[in-house]
Amino acid sequence: MSKSRIVTFTTDFGLNDPFVGIMHGVVLNIRPETPIVDISHAVPSYDILNGAIIIAQSYQFFPPRTVHVVVVDPGVGSQRRPIIAETGDYVFVAPDNGVLSLVEAQEAKFSVRHITAERYFLQPVSQTFHGRDIFAPVAGWLSNGVAPAEFGPEIFDYIRLSLPSTERVADHLRGTVIKVDKFGNVITNIRETDAPELFAPSPAPFRLVISGQAITRLFRSYAEGTESELFAIIGSSGFLEIATTRSSAAEKLKAEVGAPVEISLQS
Amino acid sequence: MSKSRIVTFTTDFGLNDPFVGIMHGVVLNIRPETPIVDISHAVPSYDILNGAIIIAQSYQFFPPRTVHVVVVDPGVGSQRRPIIAETGDYVFVAPDNGVLSLVEAQEAKFSVRHITAERYFLQPVSQTFHGRDIFAPVAGWLSNGVAPAEFGPEIFDYIRLSLPSTERVADHLRGTVIKVDKFGNVITNIRETDAPELFAPSPAPFRLVISGQAITRLFRSYAEGTESELFAIIGSSGFLEIATTRSSAAEKLKAEVGAPVEISLQS
Amino acid sequence: MSKSRIVTFTTDFGLNDPFVGIMHGVVLNIRPETPIVDISHAVPSYDILNGAIIIAQSYQFFPPRTVHVVVVDPGVGSQRRPIIAETGDYVFVAPDNGVLSLVEAQEAKFSVRHITAERYFLQPVSQTFHGRDIFAPVAGWLSNGVAPAEFGPEIFDYIRLSLPSTERVADHLRGTVIKVDKFGNVITNIRETDAPELFAPSPAPFRLVISGQAITRLFRSYAEGTESELFAIIGSSGFLEIATTRSSAAEKLKAEVGAPVEISLQS
Repeated sequence: MSKSRIVTFTTDFGLNDPFVGIMHGVVLNIRPETPIVDISHAVPSYDILNGAIIIAQSYQFFPPRTVHVVVVDPGVGSQRRPIIAETGDYVFVAPDNGVLSLVEAQEAKFSVRHITAERYFLQPVSQTFHGRDIFAPVAGWLSNGVAPAEFGPEIFDYIRLSLPSTERVADHLRGTVIKVDKFGNVITNIRETDAPELFAPSPAPFRLVISGQAITRLFRSYAEGTESELFAIIGSSGFLEIATTRSSAAEKLKAEVGAPVEISLQS
Repeated sequence: MSKSRIVTFTTDFGLNDPFVGIMHGVVLNIRPETPIVDISHAVPSYDILNGAIIIAQSYQFFPPRTVHVVVVDPGVGSQRRPIIAETGDYVFVAPDNGVLSLVEAQEAKFSVRHITAERYFLQPVSQTFHGRDIFAPVAGWLSNGVAPAEFGPEIFDYIRLSLPSTERVADHLRGTVIKVDKFGNVITNIRETDAPELFAPSPAPFRLVISGQAITRLFRSYAEGTESELFAIIGSSGFLEIATTRSSAAEKLKAEVGAPVEISLQS
Repeated sequence: MSKSRIVTFTTDFGLNDPFVGIMHGVVLNIRPETPIVDISHAVPSYDILNGAIIIAQSYQFFPPRTVHVVVVDPGVGSQRRPIIAETGDYVFVAPDNGVLSLVEAQEAKFSVRHITAERYFLQPVSQTFHGRDIFAPVAGWLSNGVAPAEFGPEIFDYIRLSLPSTERVADHLRGTVIKVDKFGNVITNIRETDAPELFAPSPAPFRLVISGQAITRLFRSYAEGTESELFAIIGSSGFLEIATTRSSAAEKLKAEVGAPVEISLQS
């Protein structure tokens, strides 16, 4: 078995406090050779769905056997369980609050364990920082070769949560904005399975309405448009986005997470 | 002797400029295998006390022999000395301005050397970026196995600074806000030694006043309260905090660093 | 050949999205032992010149053989070419848009290849995230020992861009603000070659005007002045800066990137 198990962190801790550095320290105190990657610490506070989207679009780019730690944990200190989840290639450590649900949706194999083996925790366990006292040390021991089964029994009643759903009636499709990225691209929950016509090599004509503005063009790259024109584009994680060239579509549209998106497909 | 000496950085450099990346480069240029961890680069500019609090709550979670570099350095280029401090388990590199004082307060053994061995500096030494030219290369050479004694003589007149002090008269305790974290938790300078009754398994009744609001409940976890209720809690670094569930106590209280906190303990 | 090839990243991706973490994952998926350093992800969106300045002031502090990846890429998905550049000590991976021009200006040897070997790309290549699909995997394979020549043919018509130029007529020098750092230091494009008199051990008397304010003192360290006084200083990257002690010169001057700086040298 390879020695190399990378650990990644995805949290809502931000980078202003030393929370993230401390978790790195806890992992390295168990296994100083473990490579650690920060996927994002900018999940909005307590926003489980946003954390779920970020880990789901990121985990598969890491080497097999990577341990992904996800701490968006409004229930820290309550009865919510800490869990380990395993897919064919990866291991996840997280609170049992649905933050891994979009990973599960992408995987054929997904099994979950309740972490009960307190001997792997940092003692005493605080009621306010399980990232430091439970999740990081469990990741450290996993990276050091302890098998997932050592941490606790398999469970089946773990919490699941879903993306806001899309609705399609004939040629009318309704979706939702789920994210705005750093460049102001407005990311919807619409994927290829919702509208294969739009994702085809020669996409069908369509009319998309968001924030009262109509969009009828779909480009393949951000550089194809102009700064004054809004257009649709298939983003790098497979979601339909609204974008504009070298400026922020979100600002132009004043569109935020949760805003509705209506598409009429013309067949 | 183990090969593994991790280097950490705590600074007020922010992440917008390449200052932090350059310091990583300087360490890796001396020893490419050194694992490097960023504890925090969000210390407010020139705020030595804040830097002192951050390193004091973080360093002990790292493996023994870790080299902690702390650069909050308003006196860069002046006569202030660069120092190496040693505790039983760790080595610190910093300017001599008191930024290690809260580490010293937690340690039985604490000895300090004036770094005078210029042969370990990056040449020429600028007068504006000692993080790059002095602190990072010294950390690199420490991580490469050079002994602290090689860098200069022991000194005893190094600068000490203290936390704002708490005052207790009978059952009345007065403290101060020393930090607000990313979640809006308001962290005071009150610790178990100031009010053992509050930190006991069954805490004594109390009335805490901050920003004109009275708080009488102490919870064990952030999840116990409600979004509308302010409560006290023992934070993960052992300080008394004012918090609220899933929202920002600091915003509710408009409380900032330096705000007074008054507690009446009811015995 | 040494095993150690560090990879660095400089981008305009910010740290709110998982873009950076994903690129780390792509590199580690090719070679899990590669040390990765983030130089900066705070280049303003699409600001090629700012990215050029940042990499030029940083790359030389890393070990020889380091692979520097620079992704400021407004033309992603268009016909702009991905390139590898080699200097005597370093390898660079970037879009062909001039972002490496200030590195070239500092190096005697600088040769460029067009990356055409698609077998090293992540498939399918998106038209929106070449950092993930082209630049990171090419860096990963370079760090794994693949020679630059394997990636494509040498080219000579790559894009060059320059710093805004300084103008000197007799004892009058005109420059421009090119950056404001985290501490509010105002960095100009004026270097030793523009005004050797100013950079001499005993600098010549001068009168510098910026934002309508006259500055006549040049200090060697930030600590020399007072909080109310603006002064000139030679910054750690060799550019003339306007600074003030323990506060922000940029705020005092309301000076932004692009603002003119006029200097009268008194000989």
